[in-house]
Amino acid sequence: MKEYLILNGPNINMTGLREKGVYGTKTYQDMLDMIQAEADRLGVKVRFVQSNHEGALIDAIQQAYFDGCAGIVFNPGGYTHTSVALHDAVASVPIPTVEVHMSNIHAREAYRHTSMTASAAAGQIVGFGFKGYIMGLRALAEE
Amino acid sequence: MKEYLILNGPNINMTGLREKGVYGTKTYQDMLDMIQAEADRLGVKVRFVQSNHEGALIDAIQQAYFDGCAGIVFNPGGYTHTSVALHDAVASVPIPTVEVHMSNIHAREAYRHTSMTASAAAGQIVGFGFKGYIMGLRALAEE
Amino acid sequence: MKEYLILNGPNINMTGLREKGVYGTKTYQDMLDMIQAEADRLGVKVRFVQSNHEGALIDAIQQAYFDGCAGIVFNPGGYTHTSVALHDAVASVPIPTVEVHMSNIHAREAYRHTSMTASAAAGQIVGFGFKGYIMGLRALAEE
Amino acid sequence: MKEYLILNGPNINMTGLREKGVYGTKTYQDMLDMIQAEADRLGVKVRFVQSNHEGALIDAIQQAYFDGCAGIVFNPGGYTHTSVALHDAVASVPIPTVEVHMSNIHAREAYRHTSMTASAAAGQIVGFGFKGYIMGLRALAEE
Amino acid sequence: MKEYLILNGPNINMTGLREKGVYGTKTYQDMLDMIQAEADRLGVKVRFVQSNHEGALIDAIQQAYFDGCAGIVFNPGGYTHTSVALHDAVASVPIPTVEVHMSNIHAREAYRHTSMTASAAAGQIVGFGFKGYIMGLRALAEE
Amino acid sequence: MKEYLILNGPNINMTGLREKGVYGTKTYQDMLDMIQAEADRLGVKVRFVQSNHEGALIDAIQQAYFDGCAGIVFNPGGYTHTSVALHDAVASVPIPTVEVHMSNIHAREAYRHTSMTASAAAGQIVGFGFKGYIMGLRALAEE
Amino acid sequence: MKEYLILNGPNINMTGLREKGVYGTKTYQDMLDMIQAEADRLGVKVRFVQSNHEGALIDAIQQAYFDGCAGIVFNPGGYTHTSVALHDAVASVPIPTVEVHMSNIHAREAYRHTSMTASAAAGQIVGFGFKGYIMGLRALAEE
Amino acid sequence: MKEYLILNGPNINMTGLREKGVYGTKTYQDMLDMIQAEADRLGVKVRFVQSNHEGALIDAIQQAYFDGCAGIVFNPGGYTHTSVALHDAVASVPIPTVEVHMSNIHAREAYRHTSMTASAAAGQIVGFGFKGYIMGLRALAEE
Amino acid sequence: MKEYLILNGPNINMTGLREKGVYGTKTYQDMLDMIQAEADRLGVKVRFVQSNHEGALIDAIQQAYFDGCAGIVFNPGGYTHTSVALHDAVASVPIPTVEVHMSNIHAREAYRHTSMTASAAAGQIVGFGFKGYIMGLRALAEE
Amino acid sequence: MKEYLILNGPNINMTGLREKGVYGTKTYQDMLDMIQAEADRLGVKVRFVQSNHEGALIDAIQQAYFDGCAGIVFNPGGYTHTSVALHDAVASVPIPTVEVHMSNIHAREAYRHTSMTASAAAGQIVGFGFKGYIMGLRALAEE
Amino acid sequence: MKEYLILNGPNINMTGLREKGVYGTKTYQDMLDMIQAEADRLGVKVRFVQSNHEGALIDAIQQAYFDGCAGIVFNPGGYTHTSVALHDAVASVPIPTVEVHMSNIHAREAYRHTSMTASAAAGQIVGFGFKGYIMGLRALAEE
Amino acid sequence: MKEYLILNGPNINMTGLREKGVYGTKTYQDMLDMIQAEADRLGVKVRFVQSNHEGALIDAIQQAYFDGCAGIVFNPGGYTHTSVALHDAVASVPIPTVEVHMSNIHAREAYRHTSMTASAAAGQIVGFGFKGYIMGLRALAEE
Repeated sequence: MKEYLILNGPNINMTGLREKGVYGTKTYQDMLDMIQAEADRLGVKVRFVQSNHEGALIDAIQQAYFDGCAGIVFNPGGYTHTSVALHDAVASVPIPTVEVHMSNIHAREAYRHTSMTASAAAGQIVGFGFKGYIMGLRALAEE
Repeated sequence: MKEYLILNGPNINMTGLREKGVYGTKTYQDMLDMIQAEADRLGVKVRFVQSNHEGALIDAIQQAYFDGCAGIVFNPGGYTHTSVALHDAVASVPIPTVEVHMSNIHAREAYRHTSMTASAAAGQIVGFGFKGYIMGLRALAEE
Repeated sequence: MKEYLILNGPNINMTGLREKGVYGTKTYQDMLDMIQAEADRLGVKVRFVQSNHEGALIDAIQQAYFDGCAGIVFNPGGYTHTSVALHDAVASVPIPTVEVHMSNIHAREAYRHTSMTASAAAGQIVGFGFKGYIMGLRALAEE
Repeated sequence: MKEYLILNGPNINMTGLREKGVYGTKTYQDMLDMIQAEADRLGVKVRFVQSNHEGALIDAIQQAYFDGCAGIVFNPGGYTHTSVALHDAVASVPIPTVEVHMSNIHAREAYRHTSMTASAAAGQIVGFGFKGYIMGLRALAEE
Repeated sequence: MKEYLILNGPNINMTGLREKGVYGTKTYQDMLDMIQAEADRLGVKVRFVQSNHEGALIDAIQQAYFDGCAGIVFNPGGYTHTSVALHDAVASVPIPTVEVHMSNIHAREAYRHTSMTASAAAGQIVGFGFKGYIMGLRALAEE
Repeated sequence: MKEYLILNGPNINMTGLREKGVYGTKTYQDMLDMIQAEADRLGVKVRFVQSNHEGALIDAIQQAYFDGCAGIVFNPGGYTHTSVALHDAVASVPIPTVEVHMSNIHAREAYRHTSMTASAAAGQIVGFGFKGYIMGLRALAEE
Repeated sequence: MKEYLILNGPNINMTGLREKGVYGTKTYQDMLDMIQAEADRLGVKVRFVQSNHEGALIDAIQQAYFDGCAGIVFNPGGYTHTSVALHDAVASVPIPTVEVHMSNIHAREAYRHTSMTASAAAGQIVGFGFKGYIMGLRALAEE
Repeated sequence: MKEYLILNGPNINMTGLREKGVYGTKTYQDMLDMIQAEADRLGVKVRFVQSNHEGALIDAIQQAYFDGCAGIVFNPGGYTHTSVALHDAVASVPIPTVEVHMSNIHAREAYRHTSMTASAAAGQIVGFGFKGYIMGLRALAEE
Repeated sequence: MKEYLILNGPNINMTGLREKGVYGTKTYQDMLDMIQAEADRLGVKVRFVQSNHEGALIDAIQQAYFDGCAGIVFNPGGYTHTSVALHDAVASVPIPTVEVHMSNIHAREAYRHTSMTASAAAGQIVGFGFKGYIMGLRALAEE
Repeated sequence: MKEYLILNGPNINMTGLREKGVYGTKTYQDMLDMIQAEADRLGVKVRFVQSNHEGALIDAIQQAYFDGCAGIVFNPGGYTHTSVALHDAVASVPIPTVEVHMSNIHAREAYRHTSMTASAAAGQIVGFGFKGYIMGLRALAEE
Repeated sequence: MKEYLILNGPNINMTGLREKGVYGTKTYQDMLDMIQAEADRLGVKVRFVQSNHEGALIDAIQQAYFDGCAGIVFNPGGYTHTSVALHDAVASVPIPTVEVHMSNIHAREAYRHTSMTASAAAGQIVGFGFKGYIMGLRALAEE
Repeated sequence: MKEYLILNGPNINMTGLREKGVYGTKTYQDMLDMIQAEADRLGVKVRFVQSNHEGALIDAIQQAYFDGCAGIVFNPGGYTHTSVALHDAVASVPIPTVEVHMSNIHAREAYRHTSMTASAAAGQIVGFGFKGYIMGLRALAEE
């Protein structure tokens, strides 16, 4: 059975607690439940990692490689816009990666309009809330 | 029965004929067939518009508004990166719009990394080939 | 009797239907009626052209030249900020042109603060709503 | 009877003496006479202030507020392009202000293409010579 | 007999009528006659397309491809400097294209110094007036 | 008894009258009373200068030097972001100066994020409203 | 009894050991003692966290939220200028945060003049050495 | 007998009191004496104006014009780098103006490397201390 | 008999030896032979100068002027993009100059997209390999 | 016996597994063996630290200081280009540091051309693969 | 007897032959005669060097150092704006150097507004034609 | 016996005479002796070229190619930062080239932080003084 890494960057664990006008009231746990349900439907395994540490995200990507994961759904959060190291981590493993952002980063501050990590990813999904993770997982698993 | 506009910008009609290394050998007609099949599965109607004319794309968005379309899946092609007028057209109608790009624009030339139109869209899907249109249509129809 | 071209660019025909917080509830047809009334008062003819097509706006400017129009009141809409071709069109005909913007473009997004077309125009009027067209027509007709 | 402030910034008092190719031979006093005549026609009072001092222009705006002026027609001259303080002065009083420039600033040096003050104004009129003041006064008084 | 597309962008049809100091007094029709004469001498066919519409220029490039044209001599006019869509159109067809500009764009305004379309063309000829078209046609036909 | 200059730049005298959403309803006079009370508590003298004139602010800094003032609490208002002359004035006198801004300038428009004057100051206090002046005075007087 | 988080970023623990010309000879432990004494005087609790890890700083901010801390005095050190993730962490918790820098960052290298984190903070204190922490704590506790 | 205006901008009156490492210990009065002596030698009159007020400097330039001065030696100090208004003042009078800077502005901070005023001046002399004024006066008087 | 200078800048003498994928296997001597043959056909003289020295290229341009050359075909190589001195050299002589680049500089690194020298030239030919020299010589000789 | 820290940043541990076209097939362990052998030859001790965590790299630098290490050979990987915190860490300890990059960062993407950390290092070695570490260790140990 | 180097860069030898509208009709030889006459009056020796070669200018500066010259009057011509090597040459010798430009470089193209060499010079004189050399020589010789 | 070119750019011959604080008191001749000694130890030949002429450096690189040199150790001095021509020269010959800088260019002025030439080199060594040449030679000879 194929396994996929659902990787979330800094502050995503606070979802539902913070800035509700922007992100709604669903929590990070709600997100995990929703993704797990979809994984069951698709007949695949998922592993969840969330960390506020840039290095821990890199570690998780490398671990996914050593464990033979079939794909990564990745929301790098605030590291999206500046991290060369995360870009290199994604590029250094031969695993298809889908970058996901819950909010429409193009409609927010200018420094959120560009992504360092996206050029190493297979695809990017922006602005669909939790649903973006589902869309990314499906795109990987149905391939 | 809800209707959705599948709107394609300049040169998309040449898909399958051009730069096959980047886009594969499936043609624009193949794309339409694939989307139509998904629309049937979802039980919705789709209308297809492709034009090389920036103005014709704006006309189509306005027409979709007057005809009561429920959503737009839009690939603005080369107009993505500079067109204020298309941004205004999308913003001027209360129809949810999903921006789609077949290739990973973040891994191509720098002038393709930013989108004028995305900030007016509900979401953006990048890098999944034809599948991106399917993902966008589903995101709109399942809402 | 002198004739003036009242030229409106992309999405202006949606005025009154869109973003009412910014533009009010008067429609494009209301604008035309208001300008026609002023034209009657000034004893001049006006011709109205609106198009979402950049090329059609250039065609209209050239046609105004061949028909001997005495002036142009021009709102280039979203093409204002990027169109070298419209700048060249205005510069290529010896007809005084007044650029008009209904909203205060200087108080909106940064990419709306500059105008490619204004340097070819005789003058520019910004922020007076429909009244800006009246002011522009008067400035031309009273000259 | 309503009163309006006609406020002119640095070097405008030299009009008619300087760079005649650009501004013509009419003097600053001619401008005042022309505006006064229009004010009489409109049945309103005008007060004239010209100063080369940025601070004196701010003082005049604040004084207009304390005296209950109904509007300001303002040509900030060379301070247009850099003055945050004048922007704040215009923004700090609830009086509609129309920014006027005699020449077409968009057809001059690049550093004259942007305006710090315009985003705080109600509207902007560019390129109509003395007539721009008349247009601005009318726009305010006819409102 | 080989056929070549002579493609002219916005406002080129006004040549000879406009800004004579820059472009001389020869008209667009004079240009066509001159090119036709050269085509006869070279024993090739030419088709002429001029349009103010960006989309129509893309249509013409695609049509040239479907009709088996052997080359394109292309003056994109004001669209040269910003059009990603025209760049893509030229890149999407396997026809050698020579970009031509009548005046020396490097000696004019800064925004005319760069070309979006040139990187997709086979070559570029700048500053030789009508003669540039002849040079471009020869370069293609003599190959 | 030590004396300190409390120096306020353009439009600060309008505090409490303007943009109440941002600055609250306390007036400039309230600020002076609050600072005077703190000065009494600290056993120091304060002199208050407010001016809309950039030159008058420089004059006041130089006068403070000739009168032997022990420190300056300075809010340069709109001159903060562009004034080399005020920077030089602060740098030209051997009096410790604390720059104060009532609102969080980093959370406002981009042109308010940088300070020309701060590099010549001893310290900077941002975002504490009237209290920032008290904090600055204490920092100087308790040294 | 209210508790405040005193949060220090990378290399601050080396204070007193490094670059003494700039920072003096007092050590990080001296700083903690000085802040503790002030906390006792104010009748509040303080918790100290220092880390070289960007992620650990985010963890500490989130922990402070879960533990009901009343405020944060935060010196992000070298992460100040680039960290979107720390900006988001501060913005994601409803705790007033004061950003502190010991040295005058405006008088150092250009890349230290801007702060990513400041726009999410309530206020900022720059250039007062250890005293800046005291000023920040007072500003929070006296509110 | 010809008269020349020796015009000094903000903070120049503090020369000799401030930053002695850069400017030496000679005072502003020493400078005036030195220039007066040279004027006597050349058989010309000089008038001295120094002001911290940008507007007062413009006033002085206009007054020099009305009084028929034969030339201006001008050190705009901190206003050099940003003042469009002073540029316009110099450009608006047909009096040859020599811009002088005592220190080598090219070897100081980057924001002192450019001059807004120099393009309106006849010449510029940089880095010769007080002697620069003498050189400028001679260049004007010997012409 | 008219004479033309064929001027080649740094590294052009290595053509055919270097980066064959880009430039082909024809050598610099082949180029000279091809140009000489064309010169014979046109009945004109050519002189060939190649140098790696920026100064020697300027010397050659000046010498061409003193010897009455009728035109220059100039490939400035790597000096194209930065040399103000070569721009001035071309501008300082009343000889029509055609700038030639063998490869399409617009399709190479970004720093090769701009030309300092082109604005002083009569025209520019880009991307036609050796043939570009022939085209340039003809354009000059047939004039 | 002197000890040196061999410090490697994010993703270096994947060397030999990733992008073999760029880095070859030797692994991170091969690198360690090669450096150890050189250390033995030089008669010095080495300690190896690799981490994907920016903070852990700072910790290692500080620990090296407390343990009296004689030098650091440091490859900051993807943190090279943005990390102010690592720059500060290197600057905060009086240990000579040599920055090493295996590949030629100047021949890769533009964002890899600058180094935040290099200005704090004693020297930099770029483009020699594993050998660069040997060169750096020798340069430190032979000093 | 002291000796001074009068050093002129590229194209200065063409003075009087080129662009007479800007530089007048006096030739380079006239300049030398005029400087020689002034040198005689001052009782000093001058040596003249002009070269179009950047390297030859550096050689001349180094030679002046080895020969014990007392000062350099230097017009770097087109190399002014980009040459780090000339900057280093001036900085590497302990001879006072005065940079001279005949025309007002601030009133010409933007790329002529900055000087790489000026920061290494003692002073700069701009816009006085040939007279600038006389002024520079005097400033050095009278010191 | 293999031969290597030791190539030094402008002003390097002044080493030891200039700016001793930065470069120490060892002369250029000392450097040559030191390199010669190392060459003897390695059993290879070295040829030394130093020139202030950009073109002479290109000539030397081409000559090294024709003479079959096995490698180049190159310090381009002030030409490092701007020379496209030197970049092309290095790229045009199939000889491995190591770029060397004696001082840490990253800790000096901003315009010295980037290198045009480095992307064509095999490697780069920065900040080790004369030793950098030895390191470069060894890296080439031991390969």
